[in-house]
Amino acid sequence: MTGIYDQHLPKTTANYASLSPLSFIERAAQVYPHRLAVVHGDANTDIRYTWSELYSRCRQLASALATQGISKGDTVAVMLPNTPAMVEVHFAVPMTGAVLNTLNTRLDASTLAYMLDHGEAKAVLVDGEFAAVMQEALALRESTSPILVIDVVDPLYKGESRLIGTQTYNEFLSGGDANFAWELPEDEWDAIALNYTSGTTGRPKGVVYHHRGAALGAISNLLEWDMPKHAVYMWTLPMFHCNGWTFPWAIAARAGVNVCLRRVDAVSMVNAIVDHGVTHYCGAPIVHSTLVNAPPELRDRLPRGVNAMVAGAAPPATMLEGMEHLGFNLTHVYGLTETYGPAAVCAPQQEWAQLSLEQRAQKNARQGVGYHLQREVAVVDPATMRPVPHDAQVMGEIMFRGNIVMKGYLKNPEETEKALAGGWFHSGDLAVMEPDRYVRIKDRSKDIIISGGENISSIELEDVLYRHPSVQAAAVVAVNDERWGETPFAFIELKPETTVTEAQLIEHCRQYLAGFKIPKHFAFVELPKTSTGKIQKFALRQQAKAQMSAV
Amino acid sequence: MTGIYDQHLPKTTANYASLSPLSFIERAAQVYPHRLAVVHGDANTDIRYTWSELYSRCRQLASALATQGISKGDTVAVMLPNTPAMVEVHFAVPMTGAVLNTLNTRLDASTLAYMLDHGEAKAVLVDGEFAAVMQEALALRESTSPILVIDVVDPLYKGESRLIGTQTYNEFLSGGDANFAWELPEDEWDAIALNYTSGTTGRPKGVVYHHRGAALGAISNLLEWDMPKHAVYMWTLPMFHCNGWTFPWAIAARAGVNVCLRRVDAVSMVNAIVDHGVTHYCGAPIVHSTLVNAPPELRDRLPRGVNAMVAGAAPPATMLEGMEHLGFNLTHVYGLTETYGPAAVCAPQQEWAQLSLEQRAQKNARQGVGYHLQREVAVVDPATMRPVPHDAQVMGEIMFRGNIVMKGYLKNPEETEKALAGGWFHSGDLAVMEPDRYVRIKDRSKDIIISGGENISSIELEDVLYRHPSVQAAAVVAVNDERWGETPFAFIELKPETTVTEAQLIEHCRQYLAGFKIPKHFAFVELPKTSTGKIQKFALRQQAKAQMSAV
Repeated sequence: MTGIYDQHLPKTTANYASLSPLSFIERAAQVYPHRLAVVHGDANTDIRYTWSELYSRCRQLASALATQGISKGDTVAVMLPNTPAMVEVHFAVPMTGAVLNTLNTRLDASTLAYMLDHGEAKAVLVDGEFAAVMQEALALRESTSPILVIDVVDPLYKGESRLIGTQTYNEFLSGGDANFAWELPEDEWDAIALNYTSGTTGRPKGVVYHHRGAALGAISNLLEWDMPKHAVYMWTLPMFHCNGWTFPWAIAARAGVNVCLRRVDAVSMVNAIVDHGVTHYCGAPIVHSTLVNAPPELRDRLPRGVNAMVAGAAPPATMLEGMEHLGFNLTHVYGLTETYGPAAVCAPQQEWAQLSLEQRAQKNARQGVGYHLQREVAVVDPATMRPVPHDAQVMGEIMFRGNIVMKGYLKNPEETEKALAGGWFHSGDLAVMEPDRYVRIKDRSKDIIISGGENISSIELEDVLYRHPSVQAAAVVAVNDERWGETPFAFIELKPETTVTEAQLIEHCRQYLAGFKIPKHFAFVELPKTSTGKIQKFALRQQAKAQMSAV
Repeated sequence: MTGIYDQHLPKTTANYASLSPLSFIERAAQVYPHRLAVVHGDANTDIRYTWSELYSRCRQLASALATQGISKGDTVAVMLPNTPAMVEVHFAVPMTGAVLNTLNTRLDASTLAYMLDHGEAKAVLVDGEFAAVMQEALALRESTSPILVIDVVDPLYKGESRLIGTQTYNEFLSGGDANFAWELPEDEWDAIALNYTSGTTGRPKGVVYHHRGAALGAISNLLEWDMPKHAVYMWTLPMFHCNGWTFPWAIAARAGVNVCLRRVDAVSMVNAIVDHGVTHYCGAPIVHSTLVNAPPELRDRLPRGVNAMVAGAAPPATMLEGMEHLGFNLTHVYGLTETYGPAAVCAPQQEWAQLSLEQRAQKNARQGVGYHLQREVAVVDPATMRPVPHDAQVMGEIMFRGNIVMKGYLKNPEETEKALAGGWFHSGDLAVMEPDRYVRIKDRSKDIIISGGENISSIELEDVLYRHPSVQAAAVVAVNDERWGETPFAFIELKPETTVTEAQLIEHCRQYLAGFKIPKHFAFVELPKTSTGKIQKFALRQQAKAQMSAV
């Protein structure tokens, strides 16, 4: 028998619409047409678009793409830095029903070729800076299907460049109709973006996002940040990385300002913050450390009260402390490509204000609680699929479930099933659940060091190393050891004009760590980092291995 | 052929969860367990619950209801003022899968009996203040099905009372399990609430809300108001009215404070604002006018910067001006029971700050633009279903479409189809679209006056009458006229200790209105108002008719 509430109450276009971030730009353009949407460059070279102009440009681009046959379920790849074109493709591509594939701008030609083939890209938009490697990648493609190539010429780029496509972006755009009548996806489960994970082993996997998740992820970011209308957002986080944690869409929902930035360095950031009145930005720890460690004459120009969001395995306590000294409000988030970027947050509590700066930093360094519109983040024993006790002791795997989890991996049902097994997304990160139900990461599963049968968390060691005044950055990996199975190997990057000996570091560690946890090997290096600022442990592991066999 | 993005990428519990406001309280209790959730009364009689306590109470109540056989698709009616119990039922009832039917506390026994019968309520919770009328209503029911009756005893209620049920609320609650394992609805399209429209003619219609719409309506309210975490919300708007415009759920999403209020008068409001640090409240124009016109010794205690939300056909410009003088930030919203309360907003524009107070009030008096997560509000010619031009001239009907539109009318497929015909919800309100694409209401369709073939907007006349310094409130209705077809009849409520003659009002009108629009008849009365503060034009129309035939 059907209940009275299920009879004659169907979905119609009057009372149901697909959730989609495309609605956000439509509303921004209608309600705040003359508000600034995008700024790129300084007072001399400024490119500025209002929401009305940006929306028109997006519709023009969508129209031009549609004219070239791009439609529902097609893939459009882009290789772009954080320029206005990169903001535009986030709306224009899905307006055609197609899927946006943002390519990491640090990738090599063969990896790019693999992605173009695997994603079956029908078009690619490339910034002049990356035209050479893209040209190589196009030549390496296995697919013989035609691919439309468009050159994005950014007047702010002064380096070496070439044109490899059939038209420039502006030429292509001008062929489109600014009144293009796009439609919301019929199904909010339709794909909106494709993001390849940078996977350290095997082929990259193509993470598929859908319209519903993109909209709800973006709104969750707004809610967590209490982000007001017309916020001014600085693009320090690459938009190719998890679609900039969904912020191109979130900023549209707030009719805010996208402050574009081709290059992330202390001078560019400080100038952008001061010139454009930046209120919010995101980034890996290295982005924030760059400001914290900027020369005083630069740092002194910074206003207080800027809102910063940081992710990364566990931001070092010293960086959190540095941000407090700057007077920046730091929100620590956690997530993966598979969760649209952040899907958990270390939500600060009132009572933490009474703690010492160091104690507070310890609290803030945790991965925290689920995002507003995420159903749940939990620490689960992957064998039993039961949550671990809230005792800060028992380790389990961090798992997510809810609307801010990917649709799955493209053309990879085995990996999709594995990742979503048992009704949870498996992050691969190991953690404990603390008594206040905040998650604290203990290690990426692959970074755990098992020494004499004891688990050693590389994160714990790194956090101790970061406390040494001479240490700029630290990374600890496991190396094989005949006696112990594995032992910790520490890579240290020193602050400029400082020195420290191995013996001094061991002495420092002894203050905080049990003897068996103290690294057995040290190397002083410049740490290799990924394009998103994450330290490349994979490379360090190889380096450690080579060094050990050379001994 | 299925595209690559539609293959092997199914919904699972890992990557899909029903949208529901129930998630909001779950998260508030987990992340902010010790934050204040509800306060009722002053320092001497305070009832206070934290989010952890409130969540436990809701689960207890849900468990107690479930034990009594309440389950998916059942209706639970409540007749309660804005007390803690009223907040609790908003979560507890849907936790069982049942549907919450909040009854207007001003209704008579026979209307209540009709609603209990039509909604097939299996339980009713009633505050002592309304026990007498509910007892009468229960006796008038046609249904012979058993109904569970629970008495809510509010220690803050000092008036006449009686117990008519089997148990008190607290007794009932104590029988429930605070760890009740509720579940999200399997389908977010499942009903969450039933709200009867106060319909001036015919039987009241039962407007059905669903979980998805309730969640998205609540979030839209937060986004429009830039409402920060832990906002302090005063309950001046009845929760029985469109579920308090979804704010019981919205406040949970912000882990804010519900400041309960049994009675809305100047003293209670000022005390609550001052004692509890209220930051936000909603209400009909009369609620705000009460503060604007409060005696100076009371008004002077008010802090500046409180955020107020007002709905109502068109708030009089004088009230908007009064709020500006108070230093309150007024957001003017528009909607109907069928749109979960507000679904459009007169979003203020930066450049309005340069206008005179009066010009700004003119701008702010409009119904505005669609809500954040509403797809669209439009002014449509109901004959052609085409939008009217954006010329501020051509009238059409205000229509909505998107996720903030009801599921339909309960057991009334004809009215549902009519209301949602052509893929739009028909509001019945007439308006023009101004060049900036803001909707300006011209009249509730039934309040338009057609005089000598010319349409006269009663709203326009009322706005002029409100400008007279002696006028507290004004309402204009149409009366039949042999010569003109219809003519305007003005009902005037004067401010205390003021006088004005009909001739003086006519003279006043002549400054602003064309001659044919000036009301032909005046009556000085206390205006009859609905329980939500709306002036009852229906009653006035009858009164005008009686007065005309007596002439």
